[in-house]
Amino acid sequence: MSRYIAIVFLAAFAVASTPARADEGMWTFDHFPAAKVRAAYGFGPSQAWLDHVRLASARLPGCSSSFVSPQGLLMTNHHCAVGCLAALSRQGQDYVKTGFYAKTAADEVRCPGVRLIQLIGISDVTSAVAAATAGKSGRALLDARRAKTLALQASCGPRSGPIECNVVSLYHGGVYDLYRYQRYEDVRIVFAPEFNVAQFGGDPDNFNFPRYDFDLTFLRVYADDKPIATPQYLHWSKNGATVGQLVFVSGHPGGTRRELTVSQLGYVRDVELPRRIASTAEYRGILERYQTEGAEQLRQTNETLFFLENTFKELLGEQQALMDPAFFGTKVAQENALRAAVAKNPRLTAAYGSAWDALAKAETRKAQLAYNEQYVAGGPNSRLFGFARTLVRISIERAKPEADRLPGFDDAALALTTRRLSSPAPTYAGPEELSLAYWAKRLREDLGPDHPYVKKVLGNASPAQWAHALVAGTQLGDPAARTALLKGGQAAIDASTDTMIRFAVAIDADARAAQRRYEDEVTAPESKASELVAKARFAVLGTSIDPDATFSLRLSYGTVKGFPDANGTFVAPFTTIAGLYDRATGAEPYALPQSWLDAKSALTLTTPMNLATDNDIIGGNSGSPMIDKDANVVGLVFDGNIFSLGGDFGFDPQRNRTVAVDSRALLAGLRTVYHADRLLQEITP
Amino acid sequence: MSRYIAIVFLAAFAVASTPARADEGMWTFDHFPAAKVRAAYGFGPSQAWLDHVRLASARLPGCSSSFVSPQGLLMTNHHCAVGCLAALSRQGQDYVKTGFYAKTAADEVRCPGVRLIQLIGISDVTSAVAAATAGKSGRALLDARRAKTLALQASCGPRSGPIECNVVSLYHGGVYDLYRYQRYEDVRIVFAPEFNVAQFGGDPDNFNFPRYDFDLTFLRVYADDKPIATPQYLHWSKNGATVGQLVFVSGHPGGTRRELTVSQLGYVRDVELPRRIASTAEYRGILERYQTEGAEQLRQTNETLFFLENTFKELLGEQQALMDPAFFGTKVAQENALRAAVAKNPRLTAAYGSAWDALAKAETRKAQLAYNEQYVAGGPNSRLFGFARTLVRISIERAKPEADRLPGFDDAALALTTRRLSSPAPTYAGPEELSLAYWAKRLREDLGPDHPYVKKVLGNASPAQWAHALVAGTQLGDPAARTALLKGGQAAIDASTDTMIRFAVAIDADARAAQRRYEDEVTAPESKASELVAKARFAVLGTSIDPDATFSLRLSYGTVKGFPDANGTFVAPFTTIAGLYDRATGAEPYALPQSWLDAKSALTLTTPMNLATDNDIIGGNSGSPMIDKDANVVGLVFDGNIFSLGGDFGFDPQRNRTVAVDSRALLAGLRTVYHADRLLQEITP
Repeated sequence: MSRYIAIVFLAAFAVASTPARADEGMWTFDHFPAAKVRAAYGFGPSQAWLDHVRLASARLPGCSSSFVSPQGLLMTNHHCAVGCLAALSRQGQDYVKTGFYAKTAADEVRCPGVRLIQLIGISDVTSAVAAATAGKSGRALLDARRAKTLALQASCGPRSGPIECNVVSLYHGGVYDLYRYQRYEDVRIVFAPEFNVAQFGGDPDNFNFPRYDFDLTFLRVYADDKPIATPQYLHWSKNGATVGQLVFVSGHPGGTRRELTVSQLGYVRDVELPRRIASTAEYRGILERYQTEGAEQLRQTNETLFFLENTFKELLGEQQALMDPAFFGTKVAQENALRAAVAKNPRLTAAYGSAWDALAKAETRKAQLAYNEQYVAGGPNSRLFGFARTLVRISIERAKPEADRLPGFDDAALALTTRRLSSPAPTYAGPEELSLAYWAKRLREDLGPDHPYVKKVLGNASPAQWAHALVAGTQLGDPAARTALLKGGQAAIDASTDTMIRFAVAIDADARAAQRRYEDEVTAPESKASELVAKARFAVLGTSIDPDATFSLRLSYGTVKGFPDANGTFVAPFTTIAGLYDRATGAEPYALPQSWLDAKSALTLTTPMNLATDNDIIGGNSGSPMIDKDANVVGLVFDGNIFSLGGDFGFDPQRNRTVAVDSRALLAGLRTVYHADRLLQEITP
Repeated sequence: MSRYIAIVFLAAFAVASTPARADEGMWTFDHFPAAKVRAAYGFGPSQAWLDHVRLASARLPGCSSSFVSPQGLLMTNHHCAVGCLAALSRQGQDYVKTGFYAKTAADEVRCPGVRLIQLIGISDVTSAVAAATAGKSGRALLDARRAKTLALQASCGPRSGPIECNVVSLYHGGVYDLYRYQRYEDVRIVFAPEFNVAQFGGDPDNFNFPRYDFDLTFLRVYADDKPIATPQYLHWSKNGATVGQLVFVSGHPGGTRRELTVSQLGYVRDVELPRRIASTAEYRGILERYQTEGAEQLRQTNETLFFLENTFKELLGEQQALMDPAFFGTKVAQENALRAAVAKNPRLTAAYGSAWDALAKAETRKAQLAYNEQYVAGGPNSRLFGFARTLVRISIERAKPEADRLPGFDDAALALTTRRLSSPAPTYAGPEELSLAYWAKRLREDLGPDHPYVKKVLGNASPAQWAHALVAGTQLGDPAARTALLKGGQAAIDASTDTMIRFAVAIDADARAAQRRYEDEVTAPESKASELVAKARFAVLGTSIDPDATFSLRLSYGTVKGFPDANGTFVAPFTTIAGLYDRATGAEPYALPQSWLDAKSALTLTTPMNLATDNDIIGGNSGSPMIDKDANVVGLVFDGNIFSLGGDFGFDPQRNRTVAVDSRALLAGLRTVYHADRLLQEITP
């Protein structure tokens, strides 16, 4: 726990000056602290370097990636592309299990529904947003900000084009930037190894180190049925990285909550995490058992369980951080110091002094409305239900002016949604029933059997009976049925006897009312007060701190470095291919695929397999390139160690580590295990 | 949260005087605050009343019960006897589902392994224990206390006789009493309703109110193959209870932790509960899914899941209480006040001042050793493994002098264990494999795949492979095999090729070492410091507070009373039989058995079904009689409401409620639904 004690002193100090915080930071590309890095490491990236790396980076749904050839070849993790592999698989042809390799360009297959965006420009729009929302609060604030956001995004050109603009909120509303992206819709699978080596060690090894994973996939981006030209691509390092070497990670960290106030963190610790952990754990158990019931049950839910277990470990790690009294005490001390500084200054007090109490009030209301938001506004976690709700809402929303529609139904979002509805990715009845039944069971447990919404949903049915009837009576697993309803609009929805459509219609008014109530009573006051806290922080601490992650592109710096484990034993930063074979027992999840067993004698076993660095990353950074000061690839980020999970709330320089596949293992695998000569030629010509 | 704010002030006040604490308290029968109750309610029990109720009360494994006829007829809950019903059931004859009724005395069937104890005397042995342990600490303290405990217990006469003595530690070592029990070994089933009405509403309704359960079972205690005579039995109230009426509950609350220090509660909140909740939730999911795989899977695990879900809700309720900053703040304030009072007095400081820091240190060590204690010392949660470990250890321990043996292997305990080993209750391979595989999976997750113990247990097998091999190769499901190994002793164990025996042998030394380490480094210092804290509390606050529950017999008083629910809506204290029918949907767990559907028109629907009172109880009180001032039965306690779960750590007079079946519903069911004339004649002659 000593890690956080040090931060307490830093925090107290931070009020008066700028803290010197190790290698912490997920920096935006327009405010990277190059001078600070140069001072510490003798190298700081130039603007040209930053522009090059930014353009070689790209965002996939939930993940990061990089271009590694001039012909649009994209490197990412296996677990970032497993959805594509699953969607292309069928009974008897399981690409998740067997892997995939396009021996020729013609064998590259399009991933259903996958799209890619590349950040091509950043401009500050804070003052424009501030002007639009000045003096507003509550619903009026939300409406004004949304209208301004849509207008700013529309200024980039027609939504149907390949340019997409997003207003990115940084520092929880302290800064607004307009991010301009190039969008690509045709992404094809080129190479993926077998699941068992990509995710070697499965859940037990996830978020752990030492580690031995080959978590790699290559995709290729097409336009007009041809690979796109990507002149800004990353070259391959000849030698890989060494201990202590400076390395950078460019990627899309999904979200951190380091700027949250104590009352907001209290909500996460006391309400959100306990509920989510208990419910995720139980569903994990259901899925685990379901997978033992047959090969198809296993195949159909493999990806779901993988991500569920990943989330589960994240939640546990977050809980561990927030339950650590020393860590939480640091957060309290930091906030008290900031509030004391504000209290000393009448101008700051007048402008920002009420923000913390307003947030505490919003958090209390959030806790009261949490189940309502989750169950009534949210509805079940089911693909089929998602289709139904989307179709029902599109039929209503697209008739309205854009600014009056529900969030997520503006023209740009609708275009994407429409594509998703026609995706051929299969839906499986068994897992859908499982998920729906579990949702209904928890709904009844959490809201109670006497709640009117519970009675409306279940009637006299048990959760399992209800789920079975719903799935048995819907055609929404068929893309053609979805497309027909989409085209048919309101009249088709009204006439539909599809059980899932009827269910979505029946609960739509409840859901909208619950959502609106939550926005009015939680989202709006929380958003307004958070912005005030951010501004108070700027006023007292300056702006030299990186903003919380928001899935926008960030660059982190660090060095190759080991760490002390929970017992204080030092863990070295490199593993080797020999260690992979040592750990393989032959039983899941330590069963190596035949390809690796066959290649053992041909591989150099001392080749570094995975490595650990102290770059500051978080979920969403999966698939990020790890590069040296020449912007050459030395690794492929796929995970963090167990201490990285607390990184959601604060960075621990002593123990928080990024975990990557070593570039030398990537080359050795492609060459010696997979004989992927076409690929090797392309990345290391 | 206002409930705890009031207690903060009381706590500050309590340091200087005795707090006036509503109807709080699980009182021992030798220190019941009769005068206080008389002052509040105009009636206080006499010594004769207390003796009568004490002798009419009896303890079942994990539960409470009472004699309700002069012929040994014992009333308890269905869920307290469901283990007997399951043990007597076989494929095709499921007494849990169908219920059971012995139409004649000859039809009463013995419950395997069930025994009963009745408290016949209490004497204070504090000074004897104190003399034996004076000046000792660590291992020497544990050994001395154990030797003294065994000697005191042996003073009651030979262990083979029907008298059993137990040294009961109250106030965490502040007081030691010798409890003298009459023991009965022959307990037979007389009547049980169907599971679906006994546990109507199942898990969703558990720990909730309004409630509609008929959670009743009648047993009969035999000696020498004849019903025992029980002159001290409870009569039946003619009218039941009314709102505001004074009622008593006599029973065996299993354990509370109200006297724990802040560091001990911190361990529970930050380490124990998060781990147990996540692991229980996941196993719940596994079992839920397993039950859908067939009727036998359902039958074989019904009882297990019932208790697992019960525990799970308890854990969630405990977490909710400890995560409430106001409640935890109260605990901190109480401790600070007590420590401040100790600090003011040099004599108290010298005697007790170091206790809190010693506990904090023990808790830190406890957290470090927790997995070791759970997995290495504890081993898997499996009946078959339990048999194996017991057999392996008996073969070693019984050769030693009694005081040198492992805890639980003294002569009295061995006699009980020997009987348990020969119990004909069936063991099921499927659920055993499930439980073992889950244990091994968690073992690997929590200790990590590189831990030597994990490697020793699993070798190259997956958890499922390991569990399957272990269960496939053991004969310990057969009572005859167990009895043979017990008789064969060390030689038979050495020669056995039974997989489970070999596994238990292989890990026995690891387990003993882990256990000893835990006792030395956690149990001993924690025990010594807890005793000091208890004595400090006596010195500052006096002894007018009830001791934490320890499964010894307690009496609580209270009144029939509604409560405000989580939204502040008032919940009336009585439900009716009409409400039972209103809630019945026909789908599990709201499917009434045919017997109740058939009887609807013959029942008076306004009859009270369940009721709520503010008696202070906790798990273990299930099956307790609820009686009026004439000691007549007005209800049968079977649950608490959701706010009762925080009662582990503190009593909330505003919302903590005991839940009972109304005596009028019990009679109506027996008469009109079950036509149990023989029983009715006996209890209301």
